[in-house]
Amino acid sequence: MTGNAYELAGVNIDASNRAKELMTAAVRSTYGKEVLSGIGAFGGLFDAGALKGMRSPVLVGSTDGVGTKTKVAARLNRWNSIGHDLVNHSINDILVQGARPLFFLDYVASSQVLPEQIAAVVKGVADACKAAGCALLGGETAEMPGVYLPGELDLAGTIIGVVERDQIIDGSRSQAGDVIVAFPSTGLHTNGYSLARRVLDGLDWTTDMPEIGGTIGDALLTVHRSYIPAVDQLQADGIDIKGLAHITGGGLIENPPRIFPEGLGAVIKRGTWNVPAIFELIQELGNVNEAEMYRVFNMGIGMIAIISAEQASLLPAEYPIVGEMIRGTGVTIS
Amino acid sequence: MTGNAYELAGVNIDASNRAKELMTAAVRSTYGKEVLSGIGAFGGLFDAGALKGMRSPVLVGSTDGVGTKTKVAARLNRWNSIGHDLVNHSINDILVQGARPLFFLDYVASSQVLPEQIAAVVKGVADACKAAGCALLGGETAEMPGVYLPGELDLAGTIIGVVERDQIIDGSRSQAGDVIVAFPSTGLHTNGYSLARRVLDGLDWTTDMPEIGGTIGDALLTVHRSYIPAVDQLQADGIDIKGLAHITGGGLIENPPRIFPEGLGAVIKRGTWNVPAIFELIQELGNVNEAEMYRVFNMGIGMIAIISAEQASLLPAEYPIVGEMIRGTGVTIS
Repeated sequence: MTGNAYELAGVNIDASNRAKELMTAAVRSTYGKEVLSGIGAFGGLFDAGALKGMRSPVLVGSTDGVGTKTKVAARLNRWNSIGHDLVNHSINDILVQGARPLFFLDYVASSQVLPEQIAAVVKGVADACKAAGCALLGGETAEMPGVYLPGELDLAGTIIGVVERDQIIDGSRSQAGDVIVAFPSTGLHTNGYSLARRVLDGLDWTTDMPEIGGTIGDALLTVHRSYIPAVDQLQADGIDIKGLAHITGGGLIENPPRIFPEGLGAVIKRGTWNVPAIFELIQELGNVNEAEMYRVFNMGIGMIAIISAEQASLLPAEYPIVGEMIRGTGVTIS
Repeated sequence: MTGNAYELAGVNIDASNRAKELMTAAVRSTYGKEVLSGIGAFGGLFDAGALKGMRSPVLVGSTDGVGTKTKVAARLNRWNSIGHDLVNHSINDILVQGARPLFFLDYVASSQVLPEQIAAVVKGVADACKAAGCALLGGETAEMPGVYLPGELDLAGTIIGVVERDQIIDGSRSQAGDVIVAFPSTGLHTNGYSLARRVLDGLDWTTDMPEIGGTIGDALLTVHRSYIPAVDQLQADGIDIKGLAHITGGGLIENPPRIFPEGLGAVIKRGTWNVPAIFELIQELGNVNEAEMYRVFNMGIGMIAIISAEQASLLPAEYPIVGEMIRGTGVTIS
């Protein structure tokens, strides 16, 4: 074994370098003046001088992946959108604590580095970062033959944001009688794909289906929404947001209670918001019972906010009230 | 499909919850007073008030994985050490810029969540964090059937550290005549495993081999060393470290030039440091040529430091001088 032993072993350093070349411009486009060094460095450098001007800065970090939404991208060979899903999911995970993003780092791994595919994924990450004013400070592309199935890819990332300590949103001020506001989702976002793919596997994903207003492929790849604009709008309207929960794996059943004070639960009322047709299709075709649907999928609600009933009249029409806080525990869908 | 549709689709929410239970104590043991909320929250909260006391704080972030060292862990079914590899690798990636760790977030993914396995991996991450005074602020465990090969696992993570802007180490002050100091590695660290496994695949990994002083399994799983103590010691001895390079994928050929000023290269002299026997075994059995060995493996040098020749006499004996900076480009192994 000489010369190209490493390639014979399944790892192609040149392909990784080519992927890096292809993604460099997109990554650099996310840099603000805070980025002192990024791509090519061992670690990305981010000037945190602005934190010195804060009263009590708290950094908020979250790591997550897009789950098997990657397998939908693989089936359709469309790699440009899952990066947006990853970044927006991450933005929402820190937004629920009141934080705004500073920077992001991504991790893409597969059995074989295909430079154009990796570059498309990372360009999606970079574009979503840029849209949110968040630097893509670093990342890693890994080639792991024998760990990933051929043709498959995993995408994960880490977001770092900041919030003033006295502006942290944690749900602790919620009380019985407060109302629950829904921020509509665009579809599955990044959860429930293993079940959705199993149910929809035998169908054609590229032909329009009138009942869902498009193709299954489009419905499944619809980008996870960032709720920064929704939160901005409520706060601009003078609404005091007491709690925010991102509706991810575990759905409306498991996520809201993560921010409920001891002794409080919630009732969420069916029919008060629009359930996207893709969920009805999955439920019907898969004969999935409703309790499980609410545990696996967001069912059309990507984030909930808790506000006082007195402020409900200030809500813009696109954010419906879907329930209320009660003495009790957990979430009841009624 | 009713009741357990999601499990039929291959995803076990209860196994993930069990894994989380098993790892909670280890994760919590890494929390200092700066951690305001960690496991269970949408994002981990880290009090950054200490940064206000710095003159010009710069955050340094890096994401990386352990590559196919995971496959060595899988073959030996030993999951307790790769977390240490991940954290120490990451520590070194920001240490080379002068930064010290604040917190870490991990990502573990596999085709099926085996709670004890995941908990062992994350306990390794937590123990290494604790040893470095770094909080394990968050993480994600993903179950991705159909993406990962059965029995395989991937482990990646993100470290966030901080450095005073005027203390950043970037190699820019290096000049011809400076000497290159080696910090010895413990073995492969986290690079070159695809090649190493291919070459060693047919051998018994669990029987002592006198020529490497133990088993192949032990040699391959030896933990990636953190060089914080080495850097601390040099600085305590009054040595001005002008540059540091972490010797990862690309080896001594590709990593040092990442910090060389324009117009400078280096000569590294064979025989000035100890090459661990595992590398000689791989080279012989695989008939790998020397140029490739130096491009794939660290060859016994986990990090290099650039210091002025005048300060060479201050070096502790365990850190040998292995080369010098010259006018030119790249690294020549002579």
